[in-house]
Amino acid sequence: MKKTIIAVSLLISALNYCIAQVQLPSTQPNLAQAAMIKRGYGMFMHFGINTFNEKEWSDGTLPVSSYNPTNLDPDQWVRTAKEAGFRYVLLVTKHHDGFCLWDSKYTDYDVASSPVKTDVVKAVANACKKYGIQFAVYYSLWDRHEASYKDKNPQKYVDYMLNQLTELFTNYGKIGELWLDGGWDRKPEDWGIDQVYKLVKKYNPACAVSVNHTIVNEEGKRKFTLPSNMTEDNKYFFQYFPSDFRLWDPKVITKFDKKQYLHQGKSYYMPFEHTICISKYWNWFQKKELTPVRDLDEMEELFYWSTDNDNCLVVNVPPDQTGQIREYEANTVINLGKRLNLSLNKPLPKNGKFISLKQAVTASSTWKDDKNTEYGGNLINDGNLDSRWAAKDTVASVEMNLNPTEAFNKISIFEYQDTKDLSDGFSQIRVPRIQKYSVDIMQNGQWQSIYFSDEPMGDCKVIRLPKRYKTNKLRFRVLKATALPSIYEICVIDMPEKK
Amino acid sequence: MKKTIIAVSLLISALNYCIAQVQLPSTQPNLAQAAMIKRGYGMFMHFGINTFNEKEWSDGTLPVSSYNPTNLDPDQWVRTAKEAGFRYVLLVTKHHDGFCLWDSKYTDYDVASSPVKTDVVKAVANACKKYGIQFAVYYSLWDRHEASYKDKNPQKYVDYMLNQLTELFTNYGKIGELWLDGGWDRKPEDWGIDQVYKLVKKYNPACAVSVNHTIVNEEGKRKFTLPSNMTEDNKYFFQYFPSDFRLWDPKVITKFDKKQYLHQGKSYYMPFEHTICISKYWNWFQKKELTPVRDLDEMEELFYWSTDNDNCLVVNVPPDQTGQIREYEANTVINLGKRLNLSLNKPLPKNGKFISLKQAVTASSTWKDDKNTEYGGNLINDGNLDSRWAAKDTVASVEMNLNPTEAFNKISIFEYQDTKDLSDGFSQIRVPRIQKYSVDIMQNGQWQSIYFSDEPMGDCKVIRLPKRYKTNKLRFRVLKATALPSIYEICVIDMPEKK
Repeated sequence: MKKTIIAVSLLISALNYCIAQVQLPSTQPNLAQAAMIKRGYGMFMHFGINTFNEKEWSDGTLPVSSYNPTNLDPDQWVRTAKEAGFRYVLLVTKHHDGFCLWDSKYTDYDVASSPVKTDVVKAVANACKKYGIQFAVYYSLWDRHEASYKDKNPQKYVDYMLNQLTELFTNYGKIGELWLDGGWDRKPEDWGIDQVYKLVKKYNPACAVSVNHTIVNEEGKRKFTLPSNMTEDNKYFFQYFPSDFRLWDPKVITKFDKKQYLHQGKSYYMPFEHTICISKYWNWFQKKELTPVRDLDEMEELFYWSTDNDNCLVVNVPPDQTGQIREYEANTVINLGKRLNLSLNKPLPKNGKFISLKQAVTASSTWKDDKNTEYGGNLINDGNLDSRWAAKDTVASVEMNLNPTEAFNKISIFEYQDTKDLSDGFSQIRVPRIQKYSVDIMQNGQWQSIYFSDEPMGDCKVIRLPKRYKTNKLRFRVLKATALPSIYEICVIDMPEKK
Repeated sequence: MKKTIIAVSLLISALNYCIAQVQLPSTQPNLAQAAMIKRGYGMFMHFGINTFNEKEWSDGTLPVSSYNPTNLDPDQWVRTAKEAGFRYVLLVTKHHDGFCLWDSKYTDYDVASSPVKTDVVKAVANACKKYGIQFAVYYSLWDRHEASYKDKNPQKYVDYMLNQLTELFTNYGKIGELWLDGGWDRKPEDWGIDQVYKLVKKYNPACAVSVNHTIVNEEGKRKFTLPSNMTEDNKYFFQYFPSDFRLWDPKVITKFDKKQYLHQGKSYYMPFEHTICISKYWNWFQKKELTPVRDLDEMEELFYWSTDNDNCLVVNVPPDQTGQIREYEANTVINLGKRLNLSLNKPLPKNGKFISLKQAVTASSTWKDDKNTEYGGNLINDGNLDSRWAAKDTVASVEMNLNPTEAFNKISIFEYQDTKDLSDGFSQIRVPRIQKYSVDIMQNGQWQSIYFSDEPMGDCKVIRLPKRYKTNKLRFRVLKATALPSIYEICVIDMPEKK
């Protein structure tokens, strides 16, 4: 009996190994996808030459000497990830600037040539082994430093990449995921994605590979489609093939996300990996000044939304110039993990049941933009965080029908906000418009206010009710706003009681 | 054996009965005080003619016809109290305006003469029996309607009160507490407090009696002392005697509250009952417009602070013109009760251990007022919510020494705010000054920010840390403020993990 099991296991392993080297049409997760879905929740880490130059993107000319962490401690990074319940760490090993966080034979624009020579990739990979969580790698295709990138023959730079990826995949143990970025800077076919894919799978068939902006509207054209459009199977196409999963940083899929995507007439199963910042200012690289973190309530709702339906989420928690994650940022993700009661041995927790999706809505007013596009009330419960209702007046309301037999005890409201750009030309501050609001339900023919606040709303307001309500009509009233109020989504949810 | 127990019980009852009719010097709770301390947490209810006239105080001339609830439901009031874990309901039976919530033989300024004749005292008392929680009564000494109040002989009005209190104490079952208010309008000796006390104890020896502003600085003089001064035994004097407990609405005692107070050379044990509003606008009577509720975090910290050390707390939750508590206000107290896991069968929960009290503090700057009073840094951890540090600059900080062997995982910060008076001349909006701040601790010779926020602070900011820290120095930095920042108290607390 035992022998048979071993034989069968070996056979499956061999089969997986062969299969994994090419991407096969499927309606089910492959080996790498299954592993990725099981991981589900990772910590993204942007750290590099930008960290020391108040930049989000740099052009490859920043002096290598400027990379100079005063107290580099990658063990603290991974320890934080572990304490926060992340199941993998996704490390930016090289950003668009070309600076490498490991000692690469193929460039001098790396840590080995900097004042602090620690091989950060090795340190993080080792710490992942130590803390028992998985290691994943972000690598920018686009390289603004490397000379071969400018060669007329695109294969020159592809060879450079293959060499560097061989370093990464042979020197640092198992890598669970390869996140490729910056594809917009060349034609898709010039990146040698098939060669990259094959190389990766040779070393680790269970590694999931993808390129940012994976999916397009039209095959062979760079006509992007947002994840929030991906609500139909076999309608959209691979831009980069092969790819094990979909990426579109920092966009969010809908509640009706679909998994089948086309390449040359065949359909492939493709989960989505979300990327969000812990920073409320949407900075990916840490700044000298303290930047505020997102609200825990928002983080919790985005966690549920992003890890649902066999998709994944990575949260960017970047170390600062000391080479450590700031304590208050670490505390935020650890608090979230505690709140969600995350554990490596348990499936990720789920949100409650949404009872509001696509129920009929009427709005007191709707705004139309320059192109005569209407921001209708029905957009508040379409399960889409890109679409939004906007009112024509600062005092406004929407009413939503509900099924009076379905109970609810939580309401999450995602507000559209104004943004102010910050000096790095990339990150931004969001400013709420809604200053006073209530949530009312119809009970015995009368409106009852079940929630009321005079505080600015913000990215995501979560209202936890101490009991379950049932009603045929729910109303959201904006009583004061500093600009025309606009709402992405109002989710009426029935959340099971915590045990 | 059984007979003996009964005999002893009877003896004790008789003894308590005799003792209770007069207040005896003691360093221990008497029968009424012990019952009061055991109750601990009550719902205060302001409802009456003011509710229908957008007033906080009225002068007794508002027409009785204006009292007109459209959907009076006292059962809902007490059901809410029960669901929220309150152990008693303290009903305003008559406010300064003289309007009575019961059918009183001695006046026509009562519900019986109004459009809605329901005896509210009876309805609430009955609902309390139904839901198994205790009933208590607020009664204003000061009466701006009753004719006998203006009689030259003060006993005329005392007789009126004794008659009304007899109605209350003989027709509505057990009353656990009598809260008397408005004493400032006459000399203390003209209220007949000894007669009131005797009457109450005749009907219910376990009823605790008190008059607002119970304690003074000097015996026989109306020289008030605030509860926050009451940090020494046998230093302050009764203004109203007898009185079973101290009142000073809406003031809060200190962490060093003392219980022994003097009357004619003898010392009496006196717990304190706090009164706070659920309303962030500090309105006691409900208004037509929705008014926002206090933050749950603030409510939780005030709960701990106010019910600690054998003192009590009542939270005012006033019904509106429909005659019902608004759903969002009910939800707030029910959410608080759930969070605190309140149960009639368990003692009230306690805050964690304060490790910051009276530790050495240095401030970056301190402000002095017109009278040259200094608002020093040492006031942030003196356990007193009336005293405060104020800085001379909008960017400012305080550093506090801590014992590095003592761990903590929670920090509560009470901000002093600017106030805007509302149109009723009584309630007010508080406006935070501090807009951006961090909490830092010294670790290995470096400051680490364990919390950072760019949101306005407000009445009470509670920072829950996901782990225990130890440090010899904690710093609070104000990074941006709209006026000179000022802090009542920073509490560094070690909170046991929830089971």
